[in-house]
Amino acid sequence: MTDERLERQIAFVVEIDKLKSVHRQTILIDRTRKENSAEHSWHIAVLAILLSEYARKSDVDILRVIKMALIHDLVEIDAGDTYCYDEKGTLDQREREERAAGRIFGLLPADQEEELLGLWREFERGETPEAQFAAALDRVQPIINNYNTGGEMWKLNGIQSNQVRDRNRAVQKGAPLLWDYTSHLINDAVKRGMLQE
Amino acid sequence: MTDERLERQIAFVVEIDKLKSVHRQTILIDRTRKENSAEHSWHIAVLAILLSEYARKSDVDILRVIKMALIHDLVEIDAGDTYCYDEKGTLDQREREERAAGRIFGLLPADQEEELLGLWREFERGETPEAQFAAALDRVQPIINNYNTGGEMWKLNGIQSNQVRDRNRAVQKGAPLLWDYTSHLINDAVKRGMLQE
Repeated sequence: MTDERLERQIAFVVEIDKLKSVHRQTILIDRTRKENSAEHSWHIAVLAILLSEYARKSDVDILRVIKMALIHDLVEIDAGDTYCYDEKGTLDQREREERAAGRIFGLLPADQEEELLGLWREFERGETPEAQFAAALDRVQPIINNYNTGGEMWKLNGIQSNQVRDRNRAVQKGAPLLWDYTSHLINDAVKRGMLQE
Repeated sequence: MTDERLERQIAFVVEIDKLKSVHRQTILIDRTRKENSAEHSWHIAVLAILLSEYARKSDVDILRVIKMALIHDLVEIDAGDTYCYDEKGTLDQREREERAAGRIFGLLPADQEEELLGLWREFERGETPEAQFAAALDRVQPIINNYNTGGEMWKLNGIQSNQVRDRNRAVQKGAPLLWDYTSHLINDAVKRGMLQE
């Protein structure tokens, strides 16, 4: 192969296979193991298809949302998954992830690097309706998985309801119509002893 | 929660978590384990973003392609992954998968069931440029993973080059500009002893 453009694209395809080996602090609903960031990204991309009617902006650009969902965690290949309730880990998270984004998206041809790096930064900044909706889905899915596993990882990590409610604000912002639902799950999780008040 | 529509959508979100436990006859590039169908679906959805310029139809509807990539394997939750070179398994595959599609997409509200079942059938029929491009990507990714793992699963399963070339025809059909590349990989795999001639 002598086509440099395709070579760069394939190098990226090979590189991102590593996301399948980055594990998160969420377990599968069948409780067999921790979820990895590639299958988490798949799950929230499907949520984007299913739940777009609940986005704050009714005509949200669903293709942009799905693209963000698919690539938002790629930086974890270098930076690892930082547990959202790990206060120390989140201190230098932005710096580690910005460096990772530069390296990983930098494998691509310049136009695609610009597009995907732009989408990733848009997601991180969380200012557009698309980024806010994608962020909401990124919160909804772990709440669903935690609730449906009896709060196993919440218990294991000693998470309190105010921490989950704090994270849940992103749902209110990006998908207000789903916020009622996730708030209900959190309240019910507390009532059932899955989550400490 | 009393909103029946949202309840159905969430039941589907919970159900499809099971795809993360369906394993394929492809291994990760780091060779640590077999790939599952959820992370495979994520990988080819990213390929759809990256490689749309190689689709046969230059203005292929990329959102439809990505949706097909994300949902094309959901039937495996009931029907299991049928190895493409398993002649016996493929005999009743269509019937098993059609039944699975009815049950799984049937969890959704009627309008979304119709949309996703329609997309799945379109993918299966392989007549539109979108379905053909999605099918091409579904072939390209395992060839890349197999090539980059020294053909470990090809060797383990005694696969011959004509079987891989036969599967590779879908690439020629949906993404002719990628076919040169995958043909090159297959030829090189034979030369290097990863794949039997």
